Amino acid sequence: MGSSFGKLFRLSTWGESHGGGVGVVVDGCPPRIPLAESDIQIDLDRRRPGQSEVTTPRKEADEAEILSGTFEGLTLGSPIAVLVRNKDARPEAYSEMSEKFRPSHADYTYQAKYGIRNWQGGGRSSARETIGRVAAAAIAKKVIAQCFSSDLEIVPFVESIGTIRANVDTATVTRDVVESNIVRTGDPNSVEEMIDKIKEIRGDGNSIGGVVGCVIRNVPVGLGMPVFDRLEADLAKAMLSLPATKGFEVGSGFAGTEMTGRDHNDPFRMVDGKVRTTSNRSGGVQGGISNGEDIVFRVAFKPTATIMTGQDTVTTDLEDTELKGRGRHDACVLPRAVPMVEAMAALVLVDHMLRQRALAGDSE
Amino acid sequence: MGSSFGKLFRLSTWGESHGGGVGVVVDGCPPRIPLAESDIQIDLDRRRPGQSEVTTPRKEADEAEILSGTFEGLTLGSPIAVLVRNKDARPEAYSEMSEKFRPSHADYTYQAKYGIRNWQGGGRSSARETIGRVAAAAIAKKVIAQCFSSDLEIVPFVESIGTIRANVDTATVTRDVVESNIVRTGDPNSVEEMIDKIKEIRGDGNSIGGVVGCVIRNVPVGLGMPVFDRLEADLAKAMLSLPATKGFEVGSGFAGTEMTGRDHNDPFRMVDGKVRTTSNRSGGVQGGISNGEDIVFRVAFKPTATIMTGQDTVTTDLEDTELKGRGRHDACVLPRAVPMVEAMAALVLVDHMLRQRALAGDSE
Amino acid sequence: MGSSFGKLFRLSTWGESHGGGVGVVVDGCPPRIPLAESDIQIDLDRRRPGQSEVTTPRKEADEAEILSGTFEGLTLGSPIAVLVRNKDARPEAYSEMSEKFRPSHADYTYQAKYGIRNWQGGGRSSARETIGRVAAAAIAKKVIAQCFSSDLEIVPFVESIGTIRANVDTATVTRDVVESNIVRTGDPNSVEEMIDKIKEIRGDGNSIGGVVGCVIRNVPVGLGMPVFDRLEADLAKAMLSLPATKGFEVGSGFAGTEMTGRDHNDPFRMVDGKVRTTSNRSGGVQGGISNGEDIVFRVAFKPTATIMTGQDTVTTDLEDTELKGRGRHDACVLPRAVPMVEAMAALVLVDHMLRQRALAGDSE
Amino acid sequence: MGSSFGKLFRLSTWGESHGGGVGVVVDGCPPRIPLAESDIQIDLDRRRPGQSEVTTPRKEADEAEILSGTFEGLTLGSPIAVLVRNKDARPEAYSEMSEKFRPSHADYTYQAKYGIRNWQGGGRSSARETIGRVAAAAIAKKVIAQCFSSDLEIVPFVESIGTIRANVDTATVTRDVVESNIVRTGDPNSVEEMIDKIKEIRGDGNSIGGVVGCVIRNVPVGLGMPVFDRLEADLAKAMLSLPATKGFEVGSGFAGTEMTGRDHNDPFRMVDGKVRTTSNRSGGVQGGISNGEDIVFRVAFKPTATIMTGQDTVTTDLEDTELKGRGRHDACVLPRAVPMVEAMAALVLVDHMLRQRALAGDSE
Repeated sequence: MGSSFGKLFRLSTWGESHGGGVGVVVDGCPPRIPLAESDIQIDLDRRRPGQSEVTTPRKEADEAEILSGTFEGLTLGSPIAVLVRNKDARPEAYSEMSEKFRPSHADYTYQAKYGIRNWQGGGRSSARETIGRVAAAAIAKKVIAQCFSSDLEIVPFVESIGTIRANVDTATVTRDVVESNIVRTGDPNSVEEMIDKIKEIRGDGNSIGGVVGCVIRNVPVGLGMPVFDRLEADLAKAMLSLPATKGFEVGSGFAGTEMTGRDHNDPFRMVDGKVRTTSNRSGGVQGGISNGEDIVFRVAFKPTATIMTGQDTVTTDLEDTELKGRGRHDACVLPRAVPMVEAMAALVLVDHMLRQRALAGDSE
Repeated sequence: MGSSFGKLFRLSTWGESHGGGVGVVVDGCPPRIPLAESDIQIDLDRRRPGQSEVTTPRKEADEAEILSGTFEGLTLGSPIAVLVRNKDARPEAYSEMSEKFRPSHADYTYQAKYGIRNWQGGGRSSARETIGRVAAAAIAKKVIAQCFSSDLEIVPFVESIGTIRANVDTATVTRDVVESNIVRTGDPNSVEEMIDKIKEIRGDGNSIGGVVGCVIRNVPVGLGMPVFDRLEADLAKAMLSLPATKGFEVGSGFAGTEMTGRDHNDPFRMVDGKVRTTSNRSGGVQGGISNGEDIVFRVAFKPTATIMTGQDTVTTDLEDTELKGRGRHDACVLPRAVPMVEAMAALVLVDHMLRQRALAGDSE
Repeated sequence: MGSSFGKLFRLSTWGESHGGGVGVVVDGCPPRIPLAESDIQIDLDRRRPGQSEVTTPRKEADEAEILSGTFEGLTLGSPIAVLVRNKDARPEAYSEMSEKFRPSHADYTYQAKYGIRNWQGGGRSSARETIGRVAAAAIAKKVIAQCFSSDLEIVPFVESIGTIRANVDTATVTRDVVESNIVRTGDPNSVEEMIDKIKEIRGDGNSIGGVVGCVIRNVPVGLGMPVFDRLEADLAKAMLSLPATKGFEVGSGFAGTEMTGRDHNDPFRMVDGKVRTTSNRSGGVQGGISNGEDIVFRVAFKPTATIMTGQDTVTTDLEDTELKGRGRHDACVLPRAVPMVEAMAALVLVDHMLRQRALAGDSE
Repeated sequence: MGSSFGKLFRLSTWGESHGGGVGVVVDGCPPRIPLAESDIQIDLDRRRPGQSEVTTPRKEADEAEILSGTFEGLTLGSPIAVLVRNKDARPEAYSEMSEKFRPSHADYTYQAKYGIRNWQGGGRSSARETIGRVAAAAIAKKVIAQCFSSDLEIVPFVESIGTIRANVDTATVTRDVVESNIVRTGDPNSVEEMIDKIKEIRGDGNSIGGVVGCVIRNVPVGLGMPVFDRLEADLAKAMLSLPATKGFEVGSGFAGTEMTGRDHNDPFRMVDGKVRTTSNRSGGVQGGISNGEDIVFRVAFKPTATIMTGQDTVTTDLEDTELKGRGRHDACVLPRAVPMVEAMAALVLVDHMLRQRALAGDSE
């Protein structure tokens, strides 16, 4: 259990980083949505390792095959299964891992929980698992555009790498700007510094964390459910389910806790016949439900756990030892985290859109 | 939909702030757990309004009645229904609310989503809804203690109110210290300043936010599921489902994003025959699964939306207008948020304990 | 677990036959449906004991109180909690039950499963639990009528009592005919014989079973999901979840197994511009999905387990003994089973209607 | 939605009869269960077409590939994905199906529900979908044997084909007897007659139905949940979710409705220190929970819808027309239905075993 997400647009991911492959089954996709493998491949290519000089040089083609759920280019309404074969597995690179727990990885906890683990890699905790999510989200985005909101726009971006903070205005940042640079920041002026930082950190055998910000525009009013399935609660779960994440905040977030209500409240005004707020410290959600303003949130990513220097650890035989990372890893996951954040946001939105349609029909 | 939580220890809350009452049904509680209404009442009393000079003077007795699921003082294994009648409803105090949307409340979004709302109060978005959660968590804590971990300890505390930060060491803070002061902070030296601040803010008709920290000790290794139902993902959802929350972080959180892997990783060492980490930036979870270290997290609460000064808003007829808050409200929810955070933490833990027992039986 | 039903229109029943009360929480009801307690009471009165000379003389008023989820006579879209207090509890009548397992009741299995049971009555296995289902279904029927199909008609009827078979044509039987006689059969000519049979059996301290048939008319085409959540699979589960049921069949059922495909297949013809079948051995479902023809099914009810003659049994101390039934019980549950079958059918339908609306919107 | 089954041992099947393949993802399988592809292949071979002279001559190798969830021959506790590629697709054989709805198939209802269908075959309504279920159940049976009940035995058998009824004693029928004949009946004396009947029917271009009986022995006491998730309710749903099923009965079933309570009740007696019943009209379940006696149930299968004679039907353009079946199909699904019934029974059992372990731990 634990590998499925969504109530109505339900995905089930499967697969270890080493083994036959990884993939996803999406159950609940509406019928007659145009869908081709190329729709999925675009986003997998944004996610895959080896795509630029700031990601791991490990090459993975990550070619998606749709096994079911479509017919003559359209979805059938039946489960869509997507398969990506594993390649380039070099278990020998990981042999030491069979005997030692890598610090701040899931090796120890998986072993303790299950009494077994695929020590050739991170197993289910590998970022490779997110292939299934990104594939499912590529489908979700097509559903959103066709059935619910053709102008809805999810724009995630790297806001910081270590202590380098990009200067990004969530009201104006565009997807084009973000995708035009290999760190995927929303601030062209920070690109060079960020690239240099990642290279420096990598050259040092070290790693570094950062923050992904995200704005979602043109969200229909009324998404999200009161109480447990608040839109921001589901976004929080979605984001914290991504590997290496340590925090989530929406709207004013932690900074807002230092404000008073008089400064924090978002006044309502009528604008062009619509109820709007003149500020957006709520971050687009009130009472767990979208209010039509931009949804704005931030996700904290810790530095990658794999580093190329010796670290204290213990063996699977419970002896103290030392371990030095090997292999080809991202020194900074942030550039590749951007499409993952986007994917999880799309999956939360499409599910709540379907839930709202169940509740209220099309017209509301 | 949206009013249930948990896969195996499943609670369904119901009830508006104004109406017959509020309550909860807990399905999945193991049998033969000693349970009396007084077990529930203790926590409801920590949650209820009017309990001290820093909470709203609104008096609500919040007396819990167990309607089912117990027999001769023990749980039956069947659903446990708990009812708390609403009292002290003074709808006349809210009449203006029928015509105007209160800024940064759920009035507008509920109306937009459902085309109807109980304008006599916050409806399901009221903090009163959390009565059901706190009642369910009182049961959950008994299950944890009897079936899984008798020394597990959840210690939430007020870490900050506005810009006033308590000096709390999560390794040593005790429940006794927290419960001995009416703001429920973990730092005795901050109590007076925090009380004064709340009184000052209230006297000004304003409100203020803050942060609740929480440490959970003696957590069994192996709780949480890979991928979507990571322990921290479920905690994030749980906390962001509480009214007025805007952020969640676990372990190093947002601050950790500025660190390098070399400084951030938690080295393993054998201590007293157990695998331990010599630091705890992971916050007690690795790969989504508890590693036996203290689980440490923080939750951001925004300032209460109800303030006693005029604010711009719109009417239900979509005209610009002004609204001034009335009635008796908390100027700062933090002291009462402490038992709510504790409740949600307990509910996440018990559910994952039952899930782990399903997977692996008792002996692991 | 096990006390909830439905994916989108989700009910959670609670309550033992002896204790504070029984009830239900319905989560997922669309907003703005007119709903009053009297809407629920009508169906509870059809279900309650003591309503006629062929049911148990035990009097239970079963007055429903709506505790949440409505405002000014309309549903809010929030959970609707309904409470019915237990009355007329006479635990002394059951004292022997604390020491002996009643044959063909749930006493032994509950004790074995949970290590505890409310021996004052049947606990959750009591027909009294169905109050919650009937209340939820009263709401479901209003949702169906207002949102989906104003002319949909569920007509359950007693088809047989013991070996007495009513002559009922599912194409023409009306609700008025069924409700006009106290056995609730669809055949006026069988009424007297059935009443006499029940009285005779009761006079003998014995009990008797029977079959409830059901036809549902004007069902929209397209309800039900392929594979596991076929409409007939969900109906089967719904019916077999009712106390005392032992079988379910749809359309041609077991009799159809003796036919050849040539005789069994339902040919399609265009009738008044609609795709119709010229026979209905499918029973209104094909491939798990409604085809617009009448849904026709049958449910087998065993004879009531409580009889007034001595029976072999064992004690809770695991000694052989004898037990003689006492108290006031139905000698035949069939007349009261009719509204229960209707309730479960309505609950299955409304859930699939909401699921279909999520998938395809209003227009399909 | 609708393609997943089980709460804790959760399978999600995917795939159309024509397209890339079919398969299943099993989430919730306990770790460290020995599992090889051959474990799955054994049952797939019992299910596949072309296995004997009484099944369709259509040859499908149905080779299973495990893509994830195992490591060095043991399950990891992570999702197990199984893929079976489609072969031998001859869409030209089905071209007429693009324009005409086959009577008593799912063609019309799928088209009406989704506005699209894979007309090259039955899509999700094809018996080919059951490959995923059978594969998942092969895993389930290993879990049951290793974790819960090593001597539990599921023995399904053909009880009747058309009007030919086998003489099978559920107390003594063995798996060996059933698997030793190609019709899979439990009565050696009926084998020849049944084979002849199927051949005769097939020679006539016709088809025929029948009943599968099933006995499950050595079931632990206490499986099943009160109210909605009764063991027999979940079995009913499981069986009615199989293609071509029209009925389910447990224990005395429909025949029991003609009995009186005095004759129907199962008296308890102590036997060898255990609580036993001296008869088993309950069919092994009381109050929805297993009582340790044999679970006995029957499933009705209608005659195959595909027949080789002309039938009235309508076109997708809604004109009356005629259709004659073509291709290679089973004239009688019963022999191949036996492993499907077994599969669904195993899936229900393993799920309830895990649920019971969550509730009560190992020791009960």
